[in-house]
Amino acid sequence: MPSYQNKLRDKKIDFDRILDKVRVFAPATVANMICGFDILGFAVNEPGDEVKMYRSEEKGVRIRSIEGDGGRLPLDPDRNTVSACVKMLLSDLGILADIGVEIELIKHMPIGSGLGSSSASTVAGLYAINSLLGNPLHKDELMPYCVEGERLACGHGHADNVAPALMGGITLVRGGSDLDIVKIPVPQDLYAGIVFPQVDVPTRDARQLIKEKILLKDAVTQWGNIAGLVAGLFQSDYGLISRSMQDVIIEPSRAILIPEFYTMKEIALTHGALSFGISGSGPSVVAMSQGPEAAEVVTAKIQAHLSEKGIESFKYVSAVNVEGPKVLPFTN
Amino acid sequence: MPSYQNKLRDKKIDFDRILDKVRVFAPATVANMICGFDILGFAVNEPGDEVKMYRSEEKGVRIRSIEGDGGRLPLDPDRNTVSACVKMLLSDLGILADIGVEIELIKHMPIGSGLGSSSASTVAGLYAINSLLGNPLHKDELMPYCVEGERLACGHGHADNVAPALMGGITLVRGGSDLDIVKIPVPQDLYAGIVFPQVDVPTRDARQLIKEKILLKDAVTQWGNIAGLVAGLFQSDYGLISRSMQDVIIEPSRAILIPEFYTMKEIALTHGALSFGISGSGPSVVAMSQGPEAAEVVTAKIQAHLSEKGIESFKYVSAVNVEGPKVLPFTN
Repeated sequence: MPSYQNKLRDKKIDFDRILDKVRVFAPATVANMICGFDILGFAVNEPGDEVKMYRSEEKGVRIRSIEGDGGRLPLDPDRNTVSACVKMLLSDLGILADIGVEIELIKHMPIGSGLGSSSASTVAGLYAINSLLGNPLHKDELMPYCVEGERLACGHGHADNVAPALMGGITLVRGGSDLDIVKIPVPQDLYAGIVFPQVDVPTRDARQLIKEKILLKDAVTQWGNIAGLVAGLFQSDYGLISRSMQDVIIEPSRAILIPEFYTMKEIALTHGALSFGISGSGPSVVAMSQGPEAAEVVTAKIQAHLSEKGIESFKYVSAVNVEGPKVLPFTN
Repeated sequence: MPSYQNKLRDKKIDFDRILDKVRVFAPATVANMICGFDILGFAVNEPGDEVKMYRSEEKGVRIRSIEGDGGRLPLDPDRNTVSACVKMLLSDLGILADIGVEIELIKHMPIGSGLGSSSASTVAGLYAINSLLGNPLHKDELMPYCVEGERLACGHGHADNVAPALMGGITLVRGGSDLDIVKIPVPQDLYAGIVFPQVDVPTRDARQLIKEKILLKDAVTQWGNIAGLVAGLFQSDYGLISRSMQDVIIEPSRAILIPEFYTMKEIALTHGALSFGISGSGPSVVAMSQGPEAAEVVTAKIQAHLSEKGIESFKYVSAVNVEGPKVLPFTN
């Protein structure tokens, strides 16, 4: 990111105004928004990850602790994506050697859930360091670092999770590496009911299942749906949103990794959901609804069904999160 | 269309209120809108086709005359798509045997131009018969007959030309045969500069050039562009519209049929056009611009270039037509 580096060197950091500590929440995200593979995504109010960041006398960036990861994430500050991104930003600001930062990462959602777990942590970390430094960067300027964090975490630098996690709301990422990110309006009553079945689907495997070539006629159906979804969101037209949120390309390949997928889908669509599909690369599934009621009913019925089949699950019901990351007070 | 037939049988036609004659204009259309193959399209103020329709004592539907087709269109009322669609509608209304209708078709644009020539004629004819009968059908209810006209004329029943020709403005057709047609807002200063080079590209040949299978990564680029275009149109964001109106899927296959395509594109983009591409299946090309000036400049420069290469051409500069077909006064 050479152009960014040059721009950031002009940012003046006032060391007297750096905070002692900051606590930040960043939201989980539903990438793809069912029909918009690799381009659409939205943030939810819960779950989300939390970063507590402290200024320290000892120079350098360190991870103090990680909670909620089951010991799966590295504490090494060069391998942990949160600290690695923080270091990258400090380096581009030209102050990496001059400051000490300690990080506590509290994960409130499972890794590999298809809910943008790594994105939420990365965004929380970058939002936290920017807050700690007195907000020298505009929120938009954090985006390239968030994308770099995704590259470190997942092996590819897609912005479909980090864009909504950082910007809040519903985001469209177009143009690949150009990072042309467009905010799409959020209808007021749009809710997501998410169920995360306790099965493991690594993102890399989920990607490998997807075919490299697709039929043009399916692509036309898909881009008609994507255009319909975007129009429906601008017009708060829930009927159009519902008809449009159908994935004829990715879902048929990925659904086989998710136990009971088509039964869950039937449950959702017969109990008032606008649409149902895979969140990101799964195994979490998402039912969209108008108002929270259908989302509550659908997630409860899906959980009951999974339980019958011996599959444990978590559920989250939330409006679309429109603010993105936020600073929280320290409670202790 | 059995459901339609049943619905139309309930329409009461008051024979005393049928007009003696009506004159209707229907607009040319730019299908695909560069990046939205088979789903997007818009209407222009010129060119367009004209139908004069007369009630006659002699029962049956007849074509009196066709102007501007160079003798290419059939006068046989069962083979001419305009009269065939009119007959279909009268039949579904249950009054085909009870009424006499004579049609004059005046084509103001060339056949096979990629400007929805057959759609404009069909829409003008159906709008005319509905007007002649005292508007028993809502405009939307004419759509299935328009699509059927496309099927007769082109061998496939796509609505990407007839939808904007009938509804005006910019239309999204999603869901294939379900005819889910969505109107997209038209930014006030959006203009089209169209150049029709005098070369022949039959729609059927242009379709055959298109690959059945495409790369998923190209499809993702394309649907990011489509989503960006729809969002840009809703927000009157000309920058986003410009960045999004790029076709990575169809244009590379079809451009080879259009002489000087890439030179024309370079001329357009270096002289202020927002975007440039093929209109429908070509050979007409279209440059979008903010305001009429760039469209005027670009079409003039493209025409001059084509002329140098010995290729004659027509040009049309127009805002997006927002009203669709309209009744015109008889001037003689």
